[in-house]
Amino acid sequence: MAESVSIQEVGLRDGLQMVKHTLPTVTKTEWIAAQAAVGFRAIEVTSFVPPALLPQFADAAEVMAAANKTPNLTAAALALNLKGAVNALAAGSPKLTFVLSASEAHNHSNVRCDTDVSLGVFSDVIAHAGDTDTQIGVAIATSFGCSLQGDVSEDRVVELAQLLEQAGARKITLADTVGYANPAQVKRLFNRVAQMVKIPLAAHFHDTRGMGLANVVAALDAGVRSFDASLGGLGGCPFAPGASGNIATEDCVYLIESMGFPTGIDLDGLLDLRHQLADWLPDETLSGRLGVAGPARTFQSLN
Amino acid sequence: MAESVSIQEVGLRDGLQMVKHTLPTVTKTEWIAAQAAVGFRAIEVTSFVPPALLPQFADAAEVMAAANKTPNLTAAALALNLKGAVNALAAGSPKLTFVLSASEAHNHSNVRCDTDVSLGVFSDVIAHAGDTDTQIGVAIATSFGCSLQGDVSEDRVVELAQLLEQAGARKITLADTVGYANPAQVKRLFNRVAQMVKIPLAAHFHDTRGMGLANVVAALDAGVRSFDASLGGLGGCPFAPGASGNIATEDCVYLIESMGFPTGIDLDGLLDLRHQLADWLPDETLSGRLGVAGPARTFQSLN
Repeated sequence: MAESVSIQEVGLRDGLQMVKHTLPTVTKTEWIAAQAAVGFRAIEVTSFVPPALLPQFADAAEVMAAANKTPNLTAAALALNLKGAVNALAAGSPKLTFVLSASEAHNHSNVRCDTDVSLGVFSDVIAHAGDTDTQIGVAIATSFGCSLQGDVSEDRVVELAQLLEQAGARKITLADTVGYANPAQVKRLFNRVAQMVKIPLAAHFHDTRGMGLANVVAALDAGVRSFDASLGGLGGCPFAPGASGNIATEDCVYLIESMGFPTGIDLDGLLDLRHQLADWLPDETLSGRLGVAGPARTFQSLN
Repeated sequence: MAESVSIQEVGLRDGLQMVKHTLPTVTKTEWIAAQAAVGFRAIEVTSFVPPALLPQFADAAEVMAAANKTPNLTAAALALNLKGAVNALAAGSPKLTFVLSASEAHNHSNVRCDTDVSLGVFSDVIAHAGDTDTQIGVAIATSFGCSLQGDVSEDRVVELAQLLEQAGARKITLADTVGYANPAQVKRLFNRVAQMVKIPLAAHFHDTRGMGLANVVAALDAGVRSFDASLGGLGGCPFAPGASGNIATEDCVYLIESMGFPTGIDLDGLLDLRHQLADWLPDETLSGRLGVAGPARTFQSLN
């Protein structure tokens, strides 16, 4: 039996971030409970950002409190600055993902400062967290290119990963925020980073240009065993024009289990939840192929 | 510079096969000329099947005659039986792809006989072709599983490839007719077949369950340098329920060039042609991501 692979649901954060209709808190907690019930041990449940910027996450503390009562779940929250991180820690987030961008232009668009300044903010977050149990990781946005800046230096991504590890990050996620990555690049960059840092690596891909699942396979080849995905392919990045389309969780689970890696996820239950999501968000167009075609009759779940 | 990769457009055959509206012959020839003009040296332009079964291809000989006048193009035709092959050869097809299925159930559904009988028919085709210049290859349908039968034996696919090579095939295409393949399986099976036959191999993938491009990458890893794809993702298999969605040519070209393999294709011109195709077939829903998102600003064509 191959190693297991962990898939973190990010629809409640990266997905809802792009959705104009604010999903009621009670529906979010129902979604979290249902997703945990089909086997997800990792869910990014919210983002601690100013409600004026993203009203969708005004209920972040409330959602986190509900998530923390869900059996077998280690909930995660996202933060872009110190205030967000402080609020996430105060809300009892078991996991916290801090975000900075390898692209200077994207970092300025996201948080109005140089990436080096964000590195300093991350050190402040670690200092503030002190000896809390919260697992603090970092996502390096635009690791594979940027729609604002263009190319992003691979050397810079490797350097950022090293600096973040030294600063106390317990996990690094390389994120293809705008769907620019290709499988050759993914394999090369993950291999480079893995040679230089000891903490676990994760991958966050968008399917903007159809390569999302191909990039998952390339990252698997490079030894990555932790992936973000969004149910029904919900979401994108509000600051990157045209950057729609997270990889769909159900397609990602199906791919990874088909290749022989157990995920612990009940795929049929997950497909039921996708139908439920479509009812909750009737104005959103979901993507992903498995929700339409269903699994092959030869598919065998590894659970 | 990496080896170049050949992409054969199959939209005029595998795509139109699923389209109810019969495209006028003049539009087909315009499509062929436009696709050749953006760099395609290989186009499967039609199928020699009974017009009663597929009226879309009643103009097969006429389309082939027009294709043969197109500069820099080696046109191909498809045939499922001896009569079709005889007609294709009579029409002057420079390339002919004979089809049989690794799945007995699928072969019966397609041509109402055992696969061994189809092997005999292929020998008859070779005998009939005599010393013609036509390059005759074979596509092994349902090489990765079958929606009618379920699993397909990999040993059987390897055996069929060997028997077909011995019978005179100059190329073998492994086809994932119903979108059941996964990248691990693709790499394993192509590697196995490549060990046993000397003629070139090609891959034909559907994106029914989202793994189409991931399977292309797996086949590239296994040394395959020849792929089928359909403009705008047009098409599927009429005998396999739910089996919609060839991989989109534009997404395939973009993936392969992004990974450093030249294709000789002008991607911008190809995207213009996709818009033209949407006008020609207003009732069809095209797929593929690149037609919506466009190339990354960091993309550099290798031409």
